[in-house]
Amino acid sequence: MKNKLLVVGTMAFDEIITPTATSGKTLGGAATYIGLAASFSDADTGVVSVVGEDFPQKHLDLLIDKGIDLKGVEQVKGGKTFYWKGKYHDDMNKRDTLDTQLNVLADFKPKVPEHFRDASVVMLGNLAPSVQQEVLDQLLPDSNRVILLDTMNFWMDVALSELLEVIKKVDIITINDEEAMQLSGENNLVKAAKAIHQMGPEFVIIKKGEHGALLFYKDHPFYVPALPLEKVVDPTGAGDSFAGGLSGYLAAQQCASPEKIKEGILRGTAAASLCVGTLGTAGLEQSNKEDFLAQLYKLERLRTIASK
Amino acid sequence: MKNKLLVVGTMAFDEIITPTATSGKTLGGAATYIGLAASFSDADTGVVSVVGEDFPQKHLDLLIDKGIDLKGVEQVKGGKTFYWKGKYHDDMNKRDTLDTQLNVLADFKPKVPEHFRDASVVMLGNLAPSVQQEVLDQLLPDSNRVILLDTMNFWMDVALSELLEVIKKVDIITINDEEAMQLSGENNLVKAAKAIHQMGPEFVIIKKGEHGALLFYKDHPFYVPALPLEKVVDPTGAGDSFAGGLSGYLAAQQCASPEKIKEGILRGTAAASLCVGTLGTAGLEQSNKEDFLAQLYKLERLRTIASK
Repeated sequence: MKNKLLVVGTMAFDEIITPTATSGKTLGGAATYIGLAASFSDADTGVVSVVGEDFPQKHLDLLIDKGIDLKGVEQVKGGKTFYWKGKYHDDMNKRDTLDTQLNVLADFKPKVPEHFRDASVVMLGNLAPSVQQEVLDQLLPDSNRVILLDTMNFWMDVALSELLEVIKKVDIITINDEEAMQLSGENNLVKAAKAIHQMGPEFVIIKKGEHGALLFYKDHPFYVPALPLEKVVDPTGAGDSFAGGLSGYLAAQQCASPEKIKEGILRGTAAASLCVGTLGTAGLEQSNKEDFLAQLYKLERLRTIASK
Repeated sequence: MKNKLLVVGTMAFDEIITPTATSGKTLGGAATYIGLAASFSDADTGVVSVVGEDFPQKHLDLLIDKGIDLKGVEQVKGGKTFYWKGKYHDDMNKRDTLDTQLNVLADFKPKVPEHFRDASVVMLGNLAPSVQQEVLDQLLPDSNRVILLDTMNFWMDVALSELLEVIKKVDIITINDEEAMQLSGENNLVKAAKAIHQMGPEFVIIKKGEHGALLFYKDHPFYVPALPLEKVVDPTGAGDSFAGGLSGYLAAQQCASPEKIKEGILRGTAAASLCVGTLGTAGLEQSNKEDFLAQLYKLERLRTIASK
């Protein structure tokens, strides 16, 4: 029996404009990227999310084919799926949101399926903190459960107190560098991580995009570089892929020791590298475990002094 | 007998303004930082440079006390030392040059002392490419010699053809990310490194400041993170300290295999971490080999999965 990873997050239609490409209306959403990335690890992954009647069966089939349990995904009759449109600058670290339509997400009440209430690892993807909280409230008590949370500046702006309530309860937070500084009020990552530790999470992972990721654990830092890529087509979903690679690995290992979390960061980084080379979810969709392991190997070589 | 490292670069008066501190007129210059950082390694380091009559003996004594041979440093009677004044933005990755007075540097003709013409490692610090070339011209032939070069965008703007001539002859180039893109005309670091390989250097090291350094060797990348620091006081000289830590180590090892160069990048990174925590050269001046090794150890922990 595989270990269970429960994921909550958005499923969406994205419309992405990069300096070199446009996606049209395509599959997106945090839970989608997390689920796809987690599928490289040997966990039993279930998603809690919501879509509209307009959400095509082929998208659902794609995820089911990847071994993802969608019994927690509600499809709202007559409803429209969450929609996001964004445009990246020439410097793809920057993007503007052109349109957001919450649609069925506005009234979303997550329902964790019975068979995922004992999940050993829970990944709270980027979403309203109140929804993340509602998921936690439905879980069976388990003092060994590992809870991860990803969030973004939007929730700090509009729902900070709810967000802080959820952050108290998580073991591992993944957050990008600017957002870590916003959340902590510090303009230095070491100080920001210390402040975020105080909020609850024992493990603070700061995502720095093309510059890699930094784990702070008891103030000891650990660094994983991103793979240098000749072509970055679309950064959308890179952070979610990271979270999926990490949380999928922790579930498969049934262990969240510092060493396993560091290994998980390597896996998250490898998943993200498969994500950004194509538009939208295409890179994750088209990659199998072999492709994933090849990236993981490149990442190990990137960190290794000995030549072959 | 120790192995010889020959360094060419500026010696200067710097006046540095950061968001939190001002240095007044203080010791600076690429050769100064390189020499101080190289002194953490067990090499016989000699500097070729020029200063004015206004350059205080205490600065020279400081370097001599660190074991640096200054017989190649010309002191021009009645001349004034090169002066640079710069101001950092709140984002200390950005700075403005407020004043530059070349003074004795304008007519500098480097003279490599007889006993350094057989140096096994040569570090061409950031300086006019014509001066870097004149140093190479004075060396005794040695097919095993390792030549490193550091440069900046200014020389690409005003002396590109001379710069390209020198670059042809070097084994290792250290250059920051933006400058690598300017030199290559590429807007991607992997492509930029490939293009710079074509110009001559077998080893291309791209410095990314707080985000670490990337080595490209036969298109295989190797990454060393910078140490996360709670307080960065002054980034001046960080790149020169990196070059000094690297080149000093290669000289001491009398070997520039890919493995030694990777180890050298760790040493350069450790030296840079000692530099940026204080104004000007104070951090390097006050640090001994023990402090240096402590940074090196922290850097290894930063890259290591196993806990203690």
